[in-house]
Amino acid sequence: MDRRIEKTLIKARAAALDVLAAGGFSDFTMEAVSEHSGISKSTLYRHWPDRINLLADALETLNQQPRPAAPLKANELRERVIELITHLASALDGSRIASVMPALIEAAEHHEQVASFLHGYSAARRKTLVKLLQQGVARGDLPAEFNAELASLALSGPIFYCRLMSPAAFPKKRVAALVDLVLGSRCN
Amino acid sequence: MDRRIEKTLIKARAAALDVLAAGGFSDFTMEAVSEHSGISKSTLYRHWPDRINLLADALETLNQQPRPAAPLKANELRERVIELITHLASALDGSRIASVMPALIEAAEHHEQVASFLHGYSAARRKTLVKLLQQGVARGDLPAEFNAELASLALSGPIFYCRLMSPAAFPKKRVAALVDLVLGSRCN
Repeated sequence: MDRRIEKTLIKARAAALDVLAAGGFSDFTMEAVSEHSGISKSTLYRHWPDRINLLADALETLNQQPRPAAPLKANELRERVIELITHLASALDGSRIASVMPALIEAAEHHEQVASFLHGYSAARRKTLVKLLQQGVARGDLPAEFNAELASLALSGPIFYCRLMSPAAFPKKRVAALVDLVLGSRCN
Repeated sequence: MDRRIEKTLIKARAAALDVLAAGGFSDFTMEAVSEHSGISKSTLYRHWPDRINLLADALETLNQQPRPAAPLKANELRERVIELITHLASALDGSRIASVMPALIEAAEHHEQVASFLHGYSAARRKTLVKLLQQGVARGDLPAEFNAELASLALSGPIFYCRLMSPAAFPKKRVAALVDLVLGSRCN
């Protein structure tokens, strides 16, 4: 692709996220993105048929998931889970994805493509966590009846809850205590 | 208050929530509420100076919290926690508050009064739960080092997470398993 075109696309995607974070989904129009970026509306429409397609493309640039997990070794389950949940807590505290999340949640109610991105984003993160916990069960670090899927909700839920339903993000320094609560370290 | 005026106020509050649920915060205007309810804009403005005041008033009608908890008796902690979390899971599945929550989360980013309602709503619910868990610690049903505040996040977080970040509400039939996971029944 022509370097100049590529630069324009990158600029448009960034402007789309800025507009979304600043004014919510209602203010997110091709017009607003054009004004914010200085890119003409006709250029925007040449690359994206509508605002939903532009948004879907812009969101892809945010979809940075943690690296695929290496196989679990002895005595590292707790540390590895803390690492994943700390990564999530960071992602939801002050990042680009955190700033557009409320707008996405609202837009997801009305637009299937936005719902699909939002739900896919959190499902992919949670899957990494579930797999790690399942390896912990397979290794015998966790009891056989441990429900990895449910535990992934008890670990991720508080991070999203604090971002969305309380005035402050989940403090990273509390991640270890949350992990110990859910993995049941007080049993060992 | 005049019965007819009271009826108008009730109708306006209900219309406000309908409009908010249907179109999000951007579509929530005095004009839209007037159209939806058939109440004139001048009547609306006579009672509420702006849409934020109307919204705050309408939201108060939704703020139904579980009854204040009776003191905890022997052998009922698990059952009482399950009851509270089931109440929350019901509130977030298909109710009026569930339908306006995405719009509130987005509006809370931009309006202090909305943030204050939203955060207050979830904090009040969680306080009831924290108190119950603290009684459990005081009674010796839970270990002395049990962190009631953190546990309340691990119990409530998944319910909000499923409503907001996944395609389906948290299933009520999984509440007991979540409570057992967080209270650590597998230790007893």
